[in-house]
Amino acid sequence: MRTRSFKSVLKKHKAVFLDSYGVIKNHDGLIPGVQEAIDHIRLLGMPLRVLTNDASRSPDMLAEKFADAGLYGILAKEIITSGTMARKYLENKGVKGKIAYLGTENSAQYIRDAKFEPLHISEVSEQNIDKITALIFLDDEGFDWNKDLNKAVNLLRRRKIPAIVANSDALYPVSANNVNVATGGIAALVENVLGRGFIHYGKPDSQMFMYGYERLKKVGRYRRRDILMVGDTLHTDILGGNKFGISTALVLTGNTSPEQADTLIKATGVIPDYVCRSIAD
Amino acid sequence: MRTRSFKSVLKKHKAVFLDSYGVIKNHDGLIPGVQEAIDHIRLLGMPLRVLTNDASRSPDMLAEKFADAGLYGILAKEIITSGTMARKYLENKGVKGKIAYLGTENSAQYIRDAKFEPLHISEVSEQNIDKITALIFLDDEGFDWNKDLNKAVNLLRRRKIPAIVANSDALYPVSANNVNVATGGIAALVENVLGRGFIHYGKPDSQMFMYGYERLKKVGRYRRRDILMVGDTLHTDILGGNKFGISTALVLTGNTSPEQADTLIKATGVIPDYVCRSIAD
Amino acid sequence: MRTRSFKSVLKKHKAVFLDSYGVIKNHDGLIPGVQEAIDHIRLLGMPLRVLTNDASRSPDMLAEKFADAGLYGILAKEIITSGTMARKYLENKGVKGKIAYLGTENSAQYIRDAKFEPLHISEVSEQNIDKITALIFLDDEGFDWNKDLNKAVNLLRRRKIPAIVANSDALYPVSANNVNVATGGIAALVENVLGRGFIHYGKPDSQMFMYGYERLKKVGRYRRRDILMVGDTLHTDILGGNKFGISTALVLTGNTSPEQADTLIKATGVIPDYVCRSIAD
Amino acid sequence: MRTRSFKSVLKKHKAVFLDSYGVIKNHDGLIPGVQEAIDHIRLLGMPLRVLTNDASRSPDMLAEKFADAGLYGILAKEIITSGTMARKYLENKGVKGKIAYLGTENSAQYIRDAKFEPLHISEVSEQNIDKITALIFLDDEGFDWNKDLNKAVNLLRRRKIPAIVANSDALYPVSANNVNVATGGIAALVENVLGRGFIHYGKPDSQMFMYGYERLKKVGRYRRRDILMVGDTLHTDILGGNKFGISTALVLTGNTSPEQADTLIKATGVIPDYVCRSIAD
Repeated sequence: MRTRSFKSVLKKHKAVFLDSYGVIKNHDGLIPGVQEAIDHIRLLGMPLRVLTNDASRSPDMLAEKFADAGLYGILAKEIITSGTMARKYLENKGVKGKIAYLGTENSAQYIRDAKFEPLHISEVSEQNIDKITALIFLDDEGFDWNKDLNKAVNLLRRRKIPAIVANSDALYPVSANNVNVATGGIAALVENVLGRGFIHYGKPDSQMFMYGYERLKKVGRYRRRDILMVGDTLHTDILGGNKFGISTALVLTGNTSPEQADTLIKATGVIPDYVCRSIAD
Repeated sequence: MRTRSFKSVLKKHKAVFLDSYGVIKNHDGLIPGVQEAIDHIRLLGMPLRVLTNDASRSPDMLAEKFADAGLYGILAKEIITSGTMARKYLENKGVKGKIAYLGTENSAQYIRDAKFEPLHISEVSEQNIDKITALIFLDDEGFDWNKDLNKAVNLLRRRKIPAIVANSDALYPVSANNVNVATGGIAALVENVLGRGFIHYGKPDSQMFMYGYERLKKVGRYRRRDILMVGDTLHTDILGGNKFGISTALVLTGNTSPEQADTLIKATGVIPDYVCRSIAD
Repeated sequence: MRTRSFKSVLKKHKAVFLDSYGVIKNHDGLIPGVQEAIDHIRLLGMPLRVLTNDASRSPDMLAEKFADAGLYGILAKEIITSGTMARKYLENKGVKGKIAYLGTENSAQYIRDAKFEPLHISEVSEQNIDKITALIFLDDEGFDWNKDLNKAVNLLRRRKIPAIVANSDALYPVSANNVNVATGGIAALVENVLGRGFIHYGKPDSQMFMYGYERLKKVGRYRRRDILMVGDTLHTDILGGNKFGISTALVLTGNTSPEQADTLIKATGVIPDYVCRSIAD
Repeated sequence: MRTRSFKSVLKKHKAVFLDSYGVIKNHDGLIPGVQEAIDHIRLLGMPLRVLTNDASRSPDMLAEKFADAGLYGILAKEIITSGTMARKYLENKGVKGKIAYLGTENSAQYIRDAKFEPLHISEVSEQNIDKITALIFLDDEGFDWNKDLNKAVNLLRRRKIPAIVANSDALYPVSANNVNVATGGIAALVENVLGRGFIHYGKPDSQMFMYGYERLKKVGRYRRRDILMVGDTLHTDILGGNKFGISTALVLTGNTSPEQADTLIKATGVIPDYVCRSIAD
């Protein structure tokens, strides 16, 4: 496994997309040296966007969390979440009525931002079921899996409405050894028992890369290959970046450990353009 | 859709396997006329076995439930459950130690019957995790999906132990319109996020049919085609029966409605030898 | 199933995306009345793009085929194929070296247009295998499935290179009753035996819709909901259009028959904004 | 990875099931020392059965091939193939009429042995299509994949008949570095494009183990745990043996290399009771 220094890879590009979890921070807090890395990118004058599969909090709340953790200088408007993509779906389709959701009160902000009325899955009833126009999976927290997943299954059997998965990740780490089932893993249970697929947002889907690219083009002229996607996960960050046609760098500070990297790249056929130990390297 | 009277189909066979849910009873209670149908089978002197994908209760408890519902004459030893198959796995493999399980106290009886020590998933801890030798999915009730599914995922990431699914059904009906996610649907979530398949018992798997057949051969000589499997579900009862080489009859009192039957048979390619409106027909 | 006249649906929009097969033509030739429908769109002054999952021929050749069939007025530069998307992948990633492909000589044009050197799968040998930098599935014709699929499997086991599927469709109709396995069905065999997923282009993937949208924005200002995607297939045209946030109309002249439409919409949860009998309606 | 000598593992059991490919022989010929290993089993007086996922040749032909390769003393009636299971399906169901098949002339012997009339897939025509009562996938050779897979797809779309896969393996090795797509991989293409599952025989399915066990019980009294299944493949030999409740030993002379064994066992959760370098060890 040949690795390169992140600084040398940066030099070949004109803009950066960073994944958040596993690149900027992990279950332990900030990745060591990340502040210096961000400062270095700023120094080079390169535009930066954070692309994260997260619909549990709005970009504003995520920017605040970075600051709370001690990382300064990432603006809310530089953060693009998979929740934003789901919000844009609602806006574009002009769906009317109530939007049922699985998630926390915080995650429902995406629905309110799109000017729709959120309805927590636990509040779906005979009285309002006919007014629901979509179901969204926003977070793995904030609802009772036993009761509310059964409710979601029956809602989708009764009503011909779209179901949207605002974060397709299956798992997320909660400590050095333990993981939790993420929104995408829960949605897959419902898809599986119903035998149908939902509308998924988040990396590796092209839509999030495209949105980032469109926002980048408002501040300058960039070809796709001028952009570097930096991520810790082959099947989201790297696959999505490769497919969208931008450069990709795998870092080894998250889901992909230095020991596994080579085997995983070979097994999955998802090949990053570069491998770096860390963005602080 | 050409249907035949169940009595005329019975005449061509010498033994009967009945599915329980959708054939003998449903969410409303007993299927009308089922007592007469069972009595008729007895009158013909045909041996009968109930083959059910159920690991939530022992055969003894299920026999009692039939009687409580007002159906008489089905003996506990005529009932073969997918839980029995899981129990036999434990006995045959001679697995030692504690068996972690997801399910109710009632379902844990299968573990105790195999002379093993059940450990409810919620009680798995750093102190006992190294003594666990298998994980079994027994029922969809009796545990907290949010907490305990995450526990099951992490247990299987930490320990190299077999995972057994004692009921592979994805859904079960709870009222005329509503369903619940069944044990198999929950297990599939864990299989999916871990990217591995577990050991599954229950129809359509051959093992349950074989076990029923072996028990039948203790009371008489039967060729496979002498046996009639009666079920309401194409991909469990009928597929399993077809594959095992016994006769199959689909009844329209459960999962497969008279309106859908023809379309579903064509779409799935799972073709019953006979279609009957009901076992009371 | 309530249908609307295509003309009345058109009026609510400012631009049109048309699928080709099942909308403009089918195995029998042109859909009756399609010339009038295209002329009507021109009369309204609405920009039109054809979005087709096809990598067997270049847009130039497809435009010629429309004219040969007797349909006039669709320009090559109005045709966007999934092959174009694959070509752009090669251009964007700046992949060097030989590109191995499965398909006809015609389909290899996409590789030459990207300024790469195509190598037919049958010509892969010990001498050139180390110079191959990607494998592309372009067409279901032009190679020997027995020999060349085995060759593709072994190439991907030996070399850590990306594999690209330029048309993800599983089947295509060849007569009123018969279908052929399409490129996506063949690629899935290889993905399945290798246990890895490839990079897929074509509807329902967002990338093709985005590319169409970007080209549209060069000729005028359009919001997504101003655009109408017209297609005959729920899981490509309609799902992709819905996800991208544009309007969708299902026509019943191709994969989805008038008899099945309602059932399929309910079963898949893919809900078009409108259903029209035909674009000539 | 702790390995044990095969002889010491044998001592704990009373009967042996051996996989063929990867255990007895491989692409290079006989595994070194296999004759001595078979002779040793004979000396101990242990009954032996060969359980192989192979429907390309009858047990008689396979016994002859062992002898041709220089291995003596394995009788045709000790060989149980997945083709035998498919043959028994036909016999048990008493299917009448012509049986269409994909495979070589040799493989069609299973159909003739069941007293049915084989019809090579290439000979299916408008004249005989209505007389076909089942389709069987027997071998990956003996037919034209381009033409005949399309024919199989259209046959199954037209006729409501069962489809049987007599060997579910996805790949088989043809040299030290190369593999070929096997019958199961080809059948999966057809299942995938049609969206339905077929009836599969062969390990890990219980039916083959059961058949071997039943034949064993005719020559003596054996509990399941008295039997040792020896195989080189985790997801067929070992998974199937574990599920059926017999002892399992993984050998490292075939699909599972000494380097990968530990990682694969952990990744798949399929845990053999023993690991041996070779049956000659």
